[in-house]
Amino acid sequence: MPSAVIMAGGRGERFWPRSRIKMPKQFLSLVGGKTMLQLAVDRIEGLVGPADTYIVAGAEFREIILNQVPELPEDNIIIEPSGRDTAAAVGLAATVLGRKNPREVVAVLPADHYVRDVSRFREVLAGAAAAAEGGEEIVTLGIAPERPETGYGYICRGEECGVFAGVSAHRAVRFVEKPDYERALEYLAGGNYLWNSGIFVFRADLVDRLIKKHAPLLAEGLRKIGESLGTARYRETLEEVYSGLPRISFDYAVMERADNVLVIPCDFGWDDLGSWTALERYAARDEKGNVLEGEGVLLDAADTYVYSPGKKVAVVGVERLIIVDAGDCLLVCRKDRAGDLKQVVQALREKGYDDVL
Amino acid sequence: MPSAVIMAGGRGERFWPRSRIKMPKQFLSLVGGKTMLQLAVDRIEGLVGPADTYIVAGAEFREIILNQVPELPEDNIIIEPSGRDTAAAVGLAATVLGRKNPREVVAVLPADHYVRDVSRFREVLAGAAAAAEGGEEIVTLGIAPERPETGYGYICRGEECGVFAGVSAHRAVRFVEKPDYERALEYLAGGNYLWNSGIFVFRADLVDRLIKKHAPLLAEGLRKIGESLGTARYRETLEEVYSGLPRISFDYAVMERADNVLVIPCDFGWDDLGSWTALERYAARDEKGNVLEGEGVLLDAADTYVYSPGKKVAVVGVERLIIVDAGDCLLVCRKDRAGDLKQVVQALREKGYDDVL
Repeated sequence: MPSAVIMAGGRGERFWPRSRIKMPKQFLSLVGGKTMLQLAVDRIEGLVGPADTYIVAGAEFREIILNQVPELPEDNIIIEPSGRDTAAAVGLAATVLGRKNPREVVAVLPADHYVRDVSRFREVLAGAAAAAEGGEEIVTLGIAPERPETGYGYICRGEECGVFAGVSAHRAVRFVEKPDYERALEYLAGGNYLWNSGIFVFRADLVDRLIKKHAPLLAEGLRKIGESLGTARYRETLEEVYSGLPRISFDYAVMERADNVLVIPCDFGWDDLGSWTALERYAARDEKGNVLEGEGVLLDAADTYVYSPGKKVAVVGVERLIIVDAGDCLLVCRKDRAGDLKQVVQALREKGYDDVL
Repeated sequence: MPSAVIMAGGRGERFWPRSRIKMPKQFLSLVGGKTMLQLAVDRIEGLVGPADTYIVAGAEFREIILNQVPELPEDNIIIEPSGRDTAAAVGLAATVLGRKNPREVVAVLPADHYVRDVSRFREVLAGAAAAAEGGEEIVTLGIAPERPETGYGYICRGEECGVFAGVSAHRAVRFVEKPDYERALEYLAGGNYLWNSGIFVFRADLVDRLIKKHAPLLAEGLRKIGESLGTARYRETLEEVYSGLPRISFDYAVMERADNVLVIPCDFGWDDLGSWTALERYAARDEKGNVLEGEGVLLDAADTYVYSPGKKVAVVGVERLIIVDAGDCLLVCRKDRAGDLKQVVQALREKGYDDVL
């Protein structure tokens, strides 16, 4: 059985105004009744117990996490003093878990993913853990593309190199950044390109070695933090060192440079719920493609997503809009601009409207 | 000095969701601090005193009217038991005022108009009253068009037939319904067509005669109501008879059929504030033509009107929208559909959302 590290440090700005600095999307119920974090914990049930489940997040989310996942041991919250991207967060988790057992198999799982077929997900994750057990390879899950998505990175898979607990793993040939539409179409047609899910499984000692090799600055910081682990000066050292760690993604720092990466092609139905347009895929639409989460009338509206609990809406003659009412805030956004919500949050910040961020 | 009858019986559905059944637009502050009704009363100050000012409205608005116009004698509210369009309302007012003095000059003034140059308005109204004094002609104000408006009726003016208190009056040749755009352009270029303002000035006995001549059914009902005036059975008679009066406009029932109509060409800056797009003409716009009545950010938005007091908005990448947040309701409407809000109100009613109508 591996340990699981659930990455809950995201800011969720592209889900503003529902997602806020003090309550980012991973702590909200976006699909169904449970929060994204609770769904992430449920997803590994039977595979990883609470004692082996860790959650990486900012200190300000400690209470929220313990409320949402009451079975989690308090010490299993790994505090990230500030957001320094995923290489630092994964490195910190690997350092903490590796100190207990260097040969610990660790599954890194983003908190804000949606998985349709959870039992298939568990089978695949068990296979990935088995593949990572030898400590020679870092294993990642690659999602068979369902559409020509330009919002994700892709992984090109090579030859099959083994079957682990019934799950077939391939050599990862290369990682590619978000493609343009033409290329995304080619990837979809070709069959060898998989969406980079951001789910990694590895032995702690392997990642320690890879970070030392490919990201020496990060490794140096993690070494200092690791030495303070279990001592009275851990918190202070962490605070001091972490904010100086390079702000870089784990993909970029490690995955793309490592030559011993396996990818497991997956088809359990996956989504990263990255923005409002992603969420819409899981809601009931009317015959004109509208989603109305709330009450009201849609008159000659098409392909429009409305979220307005507790308030009546009337939408007339519009197409391809996202309309979100969050009590003290209102968003009206053209759908193809949904990815620009970080800019919106920035603009609101510049105007001094911090109370609604 | 004439008497004034301010018509405050409108339902204001095209200003939903700010305007509601229980608080229609004439009782709201839409431009500046005062309500439309208060502006209508202010507009005749110095010309018509409170004792000679009458307000026609439904019984449910009695309290609102007395609150907004505290100087108004209570008995000067002429209760319209139900909405039966303007012929019935004007006829009722003429009946009430004519009973006191058949030769009373009456100015009928809609409560929901906006006038830029109020002192010029007063001069014109005084001229209209002088022209109406003889009791031979019904006088209407025609507004020199400022744009090829397709939402108004027009009046074609003929030869000048007199100057009254310094104000020149013309024979009204004909009334025309709302034109299409091509025709509206012609009217604008031609110079003889004026917007039908819905402002009429007449002697009570003349209108009584004209209604008898052109609208005998209406006249018969008004006769019954008139006979009960000042008796204990007035309220009962009114309730009983009024709901059976023909539902027809004063323009259609009388003005278009009368051959003794004068029109006074006016250029005091007039608007009927008929819908959200009209209101926008009186608000400050940014360089992209947006109006933001509230706080927030407009990112790549153009020609968009936002009303959202007390709530932060973000509007991204949209054009030509009307966005109105009214606390318990939200409207997002393409601008060229602003005239269809009656349909929206109807659709909300059919869904049983009467609490927000």
